[in-house]
Amino acid sequence: MAKFETLDAFRAILADLPGPNDRARQDAQDRNGQLTKPPGALGTLEDLAIWYASWSGTGRPKMESPQIIIFAGNHGVTASGVSAFPAEVTAQMVMNFQAGGAAINQLANAFGAKLDVHSLDLDNPTANFTESPAMSEAELLTALQTGWNAVDPDADVLVVGEMGIGNTTSAAALCTAIFGGNPDDWVGRGTGVDDDGLQRKLDAVSAGLALHKDALSDPLEVLRCLGGREIAAMAGAMVRARVESVPVLLDGFICTSAAAVLFGMTENALDHVTAGHLSAEGAHRAALDKMSKTPLLSLGLRLGEGSGGAAALGVLKAAVACHSGMATFAEAGVSDA
Amino acid sequence: MAKFETLDAFRAILADLPGPNDRARQDAQDRNGQLTKPPGALGTLEDLAIWYASWSGTGRPKMESPQIIIFAGNHGVTASGVSAFPAEVTAQMVMNFQAGGAAINQLANAFGAKLDVHSLDLDNPTANFTESPAMSEAELLTALQTGWNAVDPDADVLVVGEMGIGNTTSAAALCTAIFGGNPDDWVGRGTGVDDDGLQRKLDAVSAGLALHKDALSDPLEVLRCLGGREIAAMAGAMVRARVESVPVLLDGFICTSAAAVLFGMTENALDHVTAGHLSAEGAHRAALDKMSKTPLLSLGLRLGEGSGGAAALGVLKAAVACHSGMATFAEAGVSDA
Repeated sequence: MAKFETLDAFRAILADLPGPNDRARQDAQDRNGQLTKPPGALGTLEDLAIWYASWSGTGRPKMESPQIIIFAGNHGVTASGVSAFPAEVTAQMVMNFQAGGAAINQLANAFGAKLDVHSLDLDNPTANFTESPAMSEAELLTALQTGWNAVDPDADVLVVGEMGIGNTTSAAALCTAIFGGNPDDWVGRGTGVDDDGLQRKLDAVSAGLALHKDALSDPLEVLRCLGGREIAAMAGAMVRARVESVPVLLDGFICTSAAAVLFGMTENALDHVTAGHLSAEGAHRAALDKMSKTPLLSLGLRLGEGSGGAAALGVLKAAVACHSGMATFAEAGVSDA
Repeated sequence: MAKFETLDAFRAILADLPGPNDRARQDAQDRNGQLTKPPGALGTLEDLAIWYASWSGTGRPKMESPQIIIFAGNHGVTASGVSAFPAEVTAQMVMNFQAGGAAINQLANAFGAKLDVHSLDLDNPTANFTESPAMSEAELLTALQTGWNAVDPDADVLVVGEMGIGNTTSAAALCTAIFGGNPDDWVGRGTGVDDDGLQRKLDAVSAGLALHKDALSDPLEVLRCLGGREIAAMAGAMVRARVESVPVLLDGFICTSAAAVLFGMTENALDHVTAGHLSAEGAHRAALDKMSKTPLLSLGLRLGEGSGGAAALGVLKAAVACHSGMATFAEAGVSDA
């Protein structure tokens, strides 16, 4: 399904995104007020259920078929010594995903989610963004399209995650470009680099921003010059989800950097997106704050793979179960204060 | 099973509690270090899995049969106008639990937990603690025993919750007595009292503390004079869980006040207990802090019924699934940095 053959076509979709279902939201709010609990006593679970209902199109939704998609890509910037792990680990972890041995496999099973894994040209890393744009326009389009195509339109909620050695450096560069500030506001230790590695990450981001300074006013160009295939694919998937009215739970810092590109293009692009988990990667909270997103969980994960978003499926499951399963005061014969 | 016929027998159990299984904990730590993720990248989920393993008796535990128990009791202190809801709601909500219509029913279903409900003499509220001790020794013993007997020794994790109109007042009195400070450090709005109701709660706690001032140095006497049957039952259940090596997830403020009684008796009494959720009831964080417990979730719930603890079952499920299901670096052929 070739939904967009040019970047302008992708831009056009972003400029005309569908909104939530107002009737479903109202129905959900009405129902919430009648359930057998004091008003507001389920806290965030109430807001979450109403938000979910507004994208599900019904005031009493179910959560039966979550989809988790992991996109994997390799990054030329690893040549700049930005990761504690060798680039080969990207492909090794993809095999681990396929064999069912990774954290995300267990989380998908735990919450009844379908897990799909897409490798994006792992043998052909993006260019080192300190030397040239990470991707050509054609490469960016292919990555966006891969993400778009990967979404199951019948999923009732989507988690997108990633695997890509070096990609916290790319994500930090995207955040610096889109949100402003300095590289050291956005660069962190990723999977665990030492002080020297951290300095190499900072140097790489600074070099990339300097080299691509003419691109920084256009988030899609920022993505092309400083991003990665798996990050672009996550962005494409989040837009497809929006078009299909599938709500999305964000994972960690890298997933959030993909969301930031969309947010930079259109502020309302993330109305169908809730932050799943606050990563231990230092700048994640700042990135979420910039987009006014409050994470459901804060468990100190810093793994990627969609793991934080998948963990938040448990919270969403709880919220939807309460909202759609509870009795009303009238049904239960309970006094309504 | 009459495990204790006197309060001294209960005290004796508290004085000689079993510890965790050190071998299982070491096995779990060793396994955790070999899983296909950067060290520490699953954050709190790693610590949680290792703690759970240490009480489960195996380094690679499962979570297959959680038990949730709700204890319901009525409080004479409601005569002092401390709740926004009439006392009849306790029994009405018990019927709702039994019919499957409450939030806790949906959460139990969502996470595969067995739900048991025990009503403790609802037609015979505790005495108003502003006028006399809430319970006689015999009444306290019966409530402790009810909790003790309610625990399934084959459960692999336990959540205890409560229903009892007026019981945030009782919980605040317990916390003031055990942790110190003033009533206004511990009294909150519960299910939603107005300013006048809040003042009546403060007055009731102050009156109770003054009347029972000679009891305040003994946590079990504090429980008898200021507590309630459902609170005592939660305490009894938590001790039984310890004796059976069943780990426990705390619910909110009232459940935590039951734990506080045990903590006041023996500091290590809560080694098998993890805080599930930080309640929106104002003093909950302070109570957890006093016992050095960090909640897994903070979702703004203030419902009771075990709902916060049950929501945290989703986090525990995620932790155990990752810990026991993931491949090791060697199994997956992934480079270990």
